[in-house]
Amino acid sequence: MFRNRMPRYEVLSEEAMATLDGGWRRLVTEIGVEFLDSRALDLFREAGQKVEDNTVFLDPDFVLEQVAKAPREFDVQARNHEHDVHIGGDAMAFGAVYGPPFVREGDVRRDGTMDDFRNFSRLAQTFGALDSAGGVVTEPNDTPLDSRHLDMTYALQTLTDKVYMGNVVSGVNARDTLAMTGILFGSREAIEQTPATISLINCNSPLRWDDRMLEAQFEYSAANQPVVLTPFILMGAMSPVTIPAALVQQMAEALSGIALSQLIRPGAPVIFGSFLSNIDMQSGSPTFGTPESGLGLLCTGQIARHFGLPFRTGGGMTSSQVPDAQAGYEALMTLLPTFLAGANWVMHSAGWLEGGLVAGYEKFIIDVELVQMLQHEFTPLEIDEASMAFDAHQEVGHGGHFLGAMHTMERFRTCFYRPMLSSSENYERWMRNGAKDTAARAGEIYRKKLEEYEQPPLDDAIRQELEEYVVRRRAELGD
Amino acid sequence: MFRNRMPRYEVLSEEAMATLDGGWRRLVTEIGVEFLDSRALDLFREAGQKVEDNTVFLDPDFVLEQVAKAPREFDVQARNHEHDVHIGGDAMAFGAVYGPPFVREGDVRRDGTMDDFRNFSRLAQTFGALDSAGGVVTEPNDTPLDSRHLDMTYALQTLTDKVYMGNVVSGVNARDTLAMTGILFGSREAIEQTPATISLINCNSPLRWDDRMLEAQFEYSAANQPVVLTPFILMGAMSPVTIPAALVQQMAEALSGIALSQLIRPGAPVIFGSFLSNIDMQSGSPTFGTPESGLGLLCTGQIARHFGLPFRTGGGMTSSQVPDAQAGYEALMTLLPTFLAGANWVMHSAGWLEGGLVAGYEKFIIDVELVQMLQHEFTPLEIDEASMAFDAHQEVGHGGHFLGAMHTMERFRTCFYRPMLSSSENYERWMRNGAKDTAARAGEIYRKKLEEYEQPPLDDAIRQELEEYVVRRRAELGD
Repeated sequence: MFRNRMPRYEVLSEEAMATLDGGWRRLVTEIGVEFLDSRALDLFREAGQKVEDNTVFLDPDFVLEQVAKAPREFDVQARNHEHDVHIGGDAMAFGAVYGPPFVREGDVRRDGTMDDFRNFSRLAQTFGALDSAGGVVTEPNDTPLDSRHLDMTYALQTLTDKVYMGNVVSGVNARDTLAMTGILFGSREAIEQTPATISLINCNSPLRWDDRMLEAQFEYSAANQPVVLTPFILMGAMSPVTIPAALVQQMAEALSGIALSQLIRPGAPVIFGSFLSNIDMQSGSPTFGTPESGLGLLCTGQIARHFGLPFRTGGGMTSSQVPDAQAGYEALMTLLPTFLAGANWVMHSAGWLEGGLVAGYEKFIIDVELVQMLQHEFTPLEIDEASMAFDAHQEVGHGGHFLGAMHTMERFRTCFYRPMLSSSENYERWMRNGAKDTAARAGEIYRKKLEEYEQPPLDDAIRQELEEYVVRRRAELGD
Repeated sequence: MFRNRMPRYEVLSEEAMATLDGGWRRLVTEIGVEFLDSRALDLFREAGQKVEDNTVFLDPDFVLEQVAKAPREFDVQARNHEHDVHIGGDAMAFGAVYGPPFVREGDVRRDGTMDDFRNFSRLAQTFGALDSAGGVVTEPNDTPLDSRHLDMTYALQTLTDKVYMGNVVSGVNARDTLAMTGILFGSREAIEQTPATISLINCNSPLRWDDRMLEAQFEYSAANQPVVLTPFILMGAMSPVTIPAALVQQMAEALSGIALSQLIRPGAPVIFGSFLSNIDMQSGSPTFGTPESGLGLLCTGQIARHFGLPFRTGGGMTSSQVPDAQAGYEALMTLLPTFLAGANWVMHSAGWLEGGLVAGYEKFIIDVELVQMLQHEFTPLEIDEASMAFDAHQEVGHGGHFLGAMHTMERFRTCFYRPMLSSSENYERWMRNGAKDTAARAGEIYRKKLEEYEQPPLDDAIRQELEEYVVRRRAELGD
C-alpha cells in the first residue's frame, strides 16, 4: 500500500490550534452533544458525565482521556493478505465512492443496480492504486431493501479480495456484516484479533448522533472493528459559514463519537472522520472541490495529528454532472490536499460525480489516474550523485539532446509516471485515432478492464457458507 | 495584486539542497555554459572567467557574486498604476498563455490571427485575477512577420492597461519594444527608473544561450527591464531523465544567465525562470501537468529562495487537445504546486492547451476560474472567537440548520468563493438549462466578456505617437 513519506503541509499556527482547542471544549461543555440511544447515554452517565434528556454535556478532559485509549495506528486484514491495509502514520488507503443512488455511463444517467455494484467492485479490485471498493459503491436499487446489505457484503467479499466497509443502516445490518466477515475470516475471534472491516458512522450534524448509526457503532466497536466517526458538514447548512466554526464543530462531534467507542470497548480502533465542504449560498446546493473544502481538509489533517488519531477525508469529489473539465479540476482540488494532509483512509477516491448522487464509470477511471499520479508525485526524490547524471552531460554536450544517452537508456522505462488515461498525442495522431476526449477514452478503459477482470479465488466451503447465510437471512428478513 | 501569505511547501532537505548545490557548481566548472554572442563572451572573459570557443567555464563563487547584485524584489509599472505589479516576496503575478501558433474555440482549431491576439488581450484585461496578458498570447499569423512585434506591442499597450511582456525574437525587436514602452511611459528614463516590461529569455537547453535571445537580453538588461532567464527543459530530451539532474541543470543555466545580466548592468532585475516538464518516453511527445513537473516545480521554488531570487513557473499547463477533464486536472496539477511554491511570475496562467501549441478560448475561462479559486484558497484563515460562531450554535441547537442563523445572514454574501464557471445545479435544473458541460459554459462566458469589454482610456497624443512609430518602423522593416 502507499506510504506518503513527503512532508505534511500544515497551515495552522500553534496559536490558531489553541483557539480551536478552546472552541470545541466550549461546545461540548456548554452546548453538549446529542446521542439518540439510551445505551450511549447510560455509558456517559455512568462515566460521570452530565446527561439531560438526550444531550450529554461533556468534560473535555474526560473526552481526551477516552480518546487517548484509541490506538494511534492499526491494521485491517483483507482475505488476500497482500491487500491488508495499515491505518495511521504515513499509510494512505484508498476506497471507491460510497453511497450514490444513481450511475452514469456516457450520456446515460440512471438508477444504480446490483450489476453496477458488481461492476464497480470489479473495477476496484482491478486497480492497484485502490485498497478497497469501499462499501456502498452504488445503491443496488433493484434488490430488496431489507436484505440488500447481504447482497452487497457478499459481492464485496467474493468479487474483491481487498478490505471492505461494513453496513451501517441498522444494528441488524451491522450484525449480519460481522457474521459474514466472521465466516470469511474463520471466526469472530479472528476478526476481533485483527479487524477485517471498516465502517462509516456519520454524525447528523450539528452535534447529534442518530439512533441507527449508534446501533451500528455499538456492534462494530464491541467487535473491535474500526469505525470512522464522521461529522457530515456542508458549511452554511450543517455548520456555521466560517471554516473555523466548522473545524471546531468537527472536533466536538468526532471526539465525542470516538469517546463513545472507547466506552463501548476501550482500545477499539477509530478514525477521525471528515466530510467537510460548503453549500452554494445562492442556491443552497452542496458544492465540492471548493477552495473552502481544500483548506478545511488541510486543517483537518493537522487537527487529527494534534489528537494522535488517524483520519479520513473524501477523495475525488465534484459537483459536476458529467466527467468534464470541472469534474477533473474539482476532483484534484480535493485529492491533492488529501495527499498534502496525508489522509489515512480516503473515501470516494474513485467514481464520485454530481455531488455524490452519481457513481460515474468514466469518472472512476479519471480518479484512478489522479490517485496514481499523486502516489507517484508524493514519493520523495532520491537525490545523490548518480541522479545528477554528470556523465550524461559529458556525453551529450551543449544544445544536444538526451534521448539516446546511456543514462536515459538505463532508466527510460521507469523514470516517469506512465499515464493510463491522459493523452499527449500530437494533434494529427489524435485526430486519426478518433479525436476522443478524456471521457471517451475513460469509457474504453473501464469496458476493457471489466472484460479482463478475473475473480479472485475463494475456498468453496467458505463461499457456500456465505451463500447459505445470505439465503437464510434473506428469508428471515422477509425479502 | 495577490499576496500569498500561506506557508511554502518545501520538500528538499538541507542535505538534498547541498547535494544539488554541488551539482550545478560542477556543471558550470567542468562542462561550462555556451553563450553564442561575442559580447557575452567578452564580458565573462574580462571578468576573469575561462572562455574556450563559445563555452564559458564559470567559477561558481563568481556566479554567486553576480547573482547577489540582482534585486531580491522589485516593482514593474503598468500604465494604470492600479495594475502595477511587485515581483518577489509573497507577491504572485499572473499572465496569460505565451506563444501558441494555433487557437481553439469550440470544435474549431485553426491558425491564430491578430483578431485572436486582440481578443485574448481583451480577456486578460477583463479579469482581475490576471495581472498581464503576457506577451505573445497567440501568434498573429495573418500579420507580416518582420513587423508583427509592433502590432502585438501596440495591442498590449492599448487594449490592456496592465503590465506586458517584451518581444525577444531579436535585438531589433527588443529595441522597438523599449522605444514603444518609452513612448507609453513618457521616456526611456521613466522606464529605466521603474521597469515597465518583462521579457522571457529562454535557454536552448542543455547549457546553451542562443544569439537572438542574448541580443534581446542585452537590450532589456541594459535598459533595466527585468528578464526571466528560463531553462527550457523537457526531461528526457533537453535534460537527463532524473528530476535532480534537471534541477541541477536548471540552476546552472538560470544562474549563468542571471550572472550575464549583472555583467551587462549590475543590479538589473532578473527572475529565476523554470519551464520544467518531461516527455513521454514511449512517443517522445512533451507532457504537462505531470507528477514530475509538479514535484520539479515545488523544488524550483525552494531553490530560487535559496539564492534569494524571485522565480517564474508555468501555470495551467496541459497536453490535452481539448478543454476536457484532462485539461482540468493537468492545469490544476501545475497551478496548485505553483501556489504551494509561491511562484512570483506565473506565465501561461490562462488559455494553454495542447502542450502550448494552442490558445484555447474555453480553456482561458477554465484557468481563470482555477486561479481565482486558488487565490481564495491561499488566503490565511482568520481564527478568532467570532469566527467560531458559538452564538450560532446556541441559536440553532442539535440537528438543526444554519441557513437562517444570524451569523449566516451577516456573512452569506462573501463567506465562500463564488464560482464563475463551476456548476452545482441539481440534475433536473442542469438538464432544463441545456445540459451544458464546463466547456460549453466557458464558451458562453468568454463571448459575454468580449461583448462587455471596455477599452481602457489612453491619452490621444500618446496613442498617436505609438501609431506613428508603428507605421514608420513597419515601413523601415520593409513590411
